[in-house]
Amino acid sequence: MTPAPLHDPLPLAQALIRCASVTPADAGAQAVLAETLERLGFTVTRLRFGEIENLFARIGTAGPHLCFAGHTDVVPAGDAGWSAGPFDGTVRDGMLYGRGACDMKGAVAAFVAACAGHLADGPPRGSISLLITGDEEGVAIDGTARVLEWMAEAGQVPDFCVVGEPTNPARLGEMIKIGRRGSLNARIAVHGRQGHVAYPHRADNPVHRLVHVLSALTAAPLDAGSDWFEPSSLQVTSIDVGNPATNVIPAIARAALNIRFNDRHSGATLTAWLRAVLAQHAGQFELEVAVSGESFLTAPGPLLERLQAAVHGVTGLEPQLDTGGGTSDARFISRLCPVAEFGLVGSTMHQVDERVPVEDLRQLARVYRHLLDTVLT
Amino acid sequence: MTPAPLHDPLPLAQALIRCASVTPADAGAQAVLAETLERLGFTVTRLRFGEIENLFARIGTAGPHLCFAGHTDVVPAGDAGWSAGPFDGTVRDGMLYGRGACDMKGAVAAFVAACAGHLADGPPRGSISLLITGDEEGVAIDGTARVLEWMAEAGQVPDFCVVGEPTNPARLGEMIKIGRRGSLNARIAVHGRQGHVAYPHRADNPVHRLVHVLSALTAAPLDAGSDWFEPSSLQVTSIDVGNPATNVIPAIARAALNIRFNDRHSGATLTAWLRAVLAQHAGQFELEVAVSGESFLTAPGPLLERLQAAVHGVTGLEPQLDTGGGTSDARFISRLCPVAEFGLVGSTMHQVDERVPVEDLRQLARVYRHLLDTVLT
Ligand SMILES: [Zn+2]
Ligand SMILES: [Zn+2]
Repeated sequence: MTPAPLHDPLPLAQALIRCASVTPADAGAQAVLAETLERLGFTVTRLRFGEIENLFARIGTAGPHLCFAGHTDVVPAGDAGWSAGPFDGTVRDGMLYGRGACDMKGAVAAFVAACAGHLADGPPRGSISLLITGDEEGVAIDGTARVLEWMAEAGQVPDFCVVGEPTNPARLGEMIKIGRRGSLNARIAVHGRQGHVAYPHRADNPVHRLVHVLSALTAAPLDAGSDWFEPSSLQVTSIDVGNPATNVIPAIARAALNIRFNDRHSGATLTAWLRAVLAQHAGQFELEVAVSGESFLTAPGPLLERLQAAVHGVTGLEPQLDTGGGTSDARFISRLCPVAEFGLVGSTMHQVDERVPVEDLRQLARVYRHLLDTVLT
Repeated sequence: MTPAPLHDPLPLAQALIRCASVTPADAGAQAVLAETLERLGFTVTRLRFGEIENLFARIGTAGPHLCFAGHTDVVPAGDAGWSAGPFDGTVRDGMLYGRGACDMKGAVAAFVAACAGHLADGPPRGSISLLITGDEEGVAIDGTARVLEWMAEAGQVPDFCVVGEPTNPARLGEMIKIGRRGSLNARIAVHGRQGHVAYPHRADNPVHRLVHVLSALTAAPLDAGSDWFEPSSLQVTSIDVGNPATNVIPAIARAALNIRFNDRHSGATLTAWLRAVLAQHAGQFELEVAVSGESFLTAPGPLLERLQAAVHGVTGLEPQLDTGGGTSDARFISRLCPVAEFGLVGSTMHQVDERVPVEDLRQLARVYRHLLDTVLT
């Protein structure tokens, strides 16, 4: 195989798409990337945790240390209906098709292409690293979180990290994510006393108590938003009593809810609030809470300003600084160093015919190159 | 088989218990009763509707016309644990054991014994009839309701009807039921728009709408009761969303509820109220209502006073006039004529070791006899 021309992201993006690395499978994707980075002079450390392949690659030893974080795993191809094979890396009418094209093998290839361009003039004035996991789309236990532990222990702490997740709703350059809301799942069980509907005074209806709890929890917004965040949102996702008998008051009623919360709350403050509302309305209850991510924010500062300038310089757009949407691995990285997210347009991610304009890939490589050139000077 | 001595209810009660007439089976129970009534001079009309055996028996053609209503079917014997065979009719320590002993083969036998005593002096001054169904414990479609249609068409309209259901909580003579609450079952489906919990503004959570509906429905009592009735009661019996995905806002949420209502409401007024609350809070919804019985009340009057006097004269107790508890076939009869319920002590009905003191059987026969003697004079 002839080495791909490294200053163009397309061949590497295609090579990565051709590895069917549906989480937790790696299908050779990490090896393709590791070889390419070694060719550029990076020191690559392969980090296998459990069944997950990850890697950390670094070139340079001095500061400033700029890190790029991403993943080589993808979600399943899903139902039929693709107009091109999901693992073929076909280019048609200037579009690269394939699972991972925008989320986020394309962005990984763009960052490698940016490194190739930047390093063409010699070793970096500072350090560039890549934190690449094979478990972003899965349970995320043996992925970025474990690599970050390893980095902290090895003293590999970046000054700034850019995550290559798709951040742009429609046009490349529209949006940088500088934080994410936290996410909390709660399961509630309210206990009562079973009985016949004709004799309600001998029973204690847990469904009514649960309705009062959920009514109190949803009566008012959690907040009106904060400087950089939309209002927090609580969604009751299920209520399940499962009582088929129309003349019986059931003994137990269960509900599940999710809270996406901004920097006015934490998993702990919300858990305390849930417990207080339950204590007021529920009688005998059980509450199980799982905080899948705290909210985080990278406040504007010099490195973020350079990323904004790079996006503006290449695309001509003023990127919006946003904190909306779902969670990403940036929630783990934020504990180690300031982190922002900028990648491709996400409109086809996780869908049939996931695709990206080849010109967007090259534009993104130019943005990353601009950032490297202005940070490592 | 030697004919049983008819002035004692015990042999007939035992004969009926020995027919394993678990709804919809008859197992010969109606024939045993028909033969006994014919022996007493009644004209018996066997009325088979669908797979259900029923009978109407009458002696006399003039008024006043007093009717006794009851059933020969029973609920299943249920789990093991009987200390006597459920269909053996065993007497032990003065107690008659068996499925139907109190609900309500015992009361049927007591009424027949009362007739035997009353008729010993000659034909009645008026009419006595019996409306006996084999489908009270089942779906009640081919039972009392159909016999009542037949009676109305045949001009067999009583002046007063006594239903022999167990009405006494602990002691024979404590309680006469003069009405029953109505019962309504409703199923609610609230439709929303499915979406991801991270983007609630793109979805419309039907669980929240349903919670608001149920909160409004349960916020205040339906009423404070009425002259003869306890307050009406609404019980939400189930809520079922069945959404296993903690990050998905579901498309539909369902609930079931039951209302036991007094004479301040009807099935129609309550349905209109449910619909109005749904229209206010639910957005797009479906409502299915099934009214299994309207409330009814037999206001105090001369015939009810004679039943009160009969109970007091025989038992020495002042019976309470009550409208609580579940529904009974009296809800159908009330459309044809005034109706009250008085029977045995119900504490063991539908349970293992259903039983009745033989002395209670004989007391009940004396109460019914007293009523016949004072009404038909
Ligand atoms: Zn991704
Ligand atoms: Zn009964």
